Amino acid sequence: MTDWIAADWGTSRLRIWAIDAAGKVTGSATSQEGMGSLTPDQFEPAFLRAAGHLLPEGRRTPVLICGMAGARTGWKEAGYVAVPAHPSGAPVQVPTVDPRLDVHILPGLSQAEPPDVMRGEETQIAGMLAATPDFDGLVCLPGTHTKWARVSEGRVTGFRTAMTGELFALVSGHSTLSSFTAEGWNEAVFDAALTTTSDAPLAADLFSLRARGLLAGYAEGEGRARLSALLIGSEVSGMIGTLSGQRVALLGDPALCRLYELALARHGLTTETLDAEAVTLGGLIAARDRMLQTSTT
Amino acid sequence: MTDWIAADWGTSRLRIWAIDAAGKVTGSATSQEGMGSLTPDQFEPAFLRAAGHLLPEGRRTPVLICGMAGARTGWKEAGYVAVPAHPSGAPVQVPTVDPRLDVHILPGLSQAEPPDVMRGEETQIAGMLAATPDFDGLVCLPGTHTKWARVSEGRVTGFRTAMTGELFALVSGHSTLSSFTAEGWNEAVFDAALTTTSDAPLAADLFSLRARGLLAGYAEGEGRARLSALLIGSEVSGMIGTLSGQRVALLGDPALCRLYELALARHGLTTETLDAEAVTLGGLIAARDRMLQTSTT
Repeated sequence: MTDWIAADWGTSRLRIWAIDAAGKVTGSATSQEGMGSLTPDQFEPAFLRAAGHLLPEGRRTPVLICGMAGARTGWKEAGYVAVPAHPSGAPVQVPTVDPRLDVHILPGLSQAEPPDVMRGEETQIAGMLAATPDFDGLVCLPGTHTKWARVSEGRVTGFRTAMTGELFALVSGHSTLSSFTAEGWNEAVFDAALTTTSDAPLAADLFSLRARGLLAGYAEGEGRARLSALLIGSEVSGMIGTLSGQRVALLGDPALCRLYELALARHGLTTETLDAEAVTLGGLIAARDRMLQTSTT
Repeated sequence: MTDWIAADWGTSRLRIWAIDAAGKVTGSATSQEGMGSLTPDQFEPAFLRAAGHLLPEGRRTPVLICGMAGARTGWKEAGYVAVPAHPSGAPVQVPTVDPRLDVHILPGLSQAEPPDVMRGEETQIAGMLAATPDFDGLVCLPGTHTKWARVSEGRVTGFRTAMTGELFALVSGHSTLSSFTAEGWNEAVFDAALTTTSDAPLAADLFSLRARGLLAGYAEGEGRARLSALLIGSEVSGMIGTLSGQRVALLGDPALCRLYELALARHGLTTETLDAEAVTLGGLIAARDRMLQTSTT
């Protein structure tokens, strides 16, 4: 019997877990109807298509959602909590029509200076903190927009986002570097090409990749690996300098986390990689617990 | 009467000057048949379409070309001269069919480490040096791929290229920042937003632009000006640190040179902006003089 439903509603995907009164996951569902493809009035029908079979009849089932569904152009805007803050803020109630639904969306985190926002990743950080409450260090969530959060005493004290994945896609797919970076891969080249510092602007190091190809040529997969090493290497170097921390937890896709692990190793930092789905669900469960505590105190 | 013809054949445009025996420009022509749109066998017909009317009958007229026509995929590959070097290298003869033509293309410059190449800009630098032979400092040629050359004792001793213009086009036209950077302009915002240093990686400062827009909103033209200030500001800061020089000459489009002038002023550097067409022609004339000197000694 479903007691409540946890959901991670991102730009391109919706993931749902049904949880019973004992806290056990009794069902799950996924949908490709991400926030990016929906107008506000399309969220409730999309949710019912994906999760309707998990909803008991005759009562309202609590649904707690994290992610882009809470953006300004999502289901209902859930705002941001300014750091320093616990990663699980107070959820916002969403008006719904179906009598089986009682929906709340978790807010994101914001930072005034340097300006930054996150939405969804704060719940993954909450999940990690639920498992290791004494964590003190950096949490890195690699992706299209990689998040780096400084976590201390159960709170996010500051964070930065690097749009490294998006730059990689733009440069490898649409620039004058595309011809030798669009395809292939060589992890040994990636590892060897990782630099920890460069005085030159990134725009110059990018052009050097092109010039190296013109002057010396590239082996299969070399150009793409060198581009990735430049972008991830400069991201990691800059972040290590900006957000200090001796312990780094990586949350995300294992193959991508592996690249960050190699780059962090260049700085003498050891990392632990956590399963992204597990911490997302853990963060939603922790947020639900906070919600119940708040409502009963 | 045309004595010889100077030409700057770039990726998107061809510019031609007819010069008489007294060194005076007696005619000119331009064509949109740039190197990027031509296969090797299409260059001679394209040249004749643009400049045929400037060629005297009954003799071979020397034609000296700089720019991308000398690239591997151009009319005929003219190679690179490795720096340190005088910017005008030995031109390469191009086989032609028309009996009125005697065509040579000037080589570009290359640098082994960090890898870099230029093709066309070296001739503009040669033109500046022809006018001011004692120049000692940096030459900056803003554009899609901005060139920075260290010039001393009549030679280019080193250079770097920053693909800042291309990054600006990619990010403002095709990224998640496009919605507030695709249009508008505000030079006061540009000037105020120019930063001289940032510890954070460029990919993070880019995302902060997006977050600032989400959190505070942007006035008309603000987003695009801030993006330009970030990219040009970080380019200039990095280049100033990498290629030392107290004197900076700017060669290029006046509106773009103005942005670099503002960024360089933040570092206490005064600049002189030179007319790009004048230095291109001056460089071709200087290269022709070197060619004649070499052939008679």
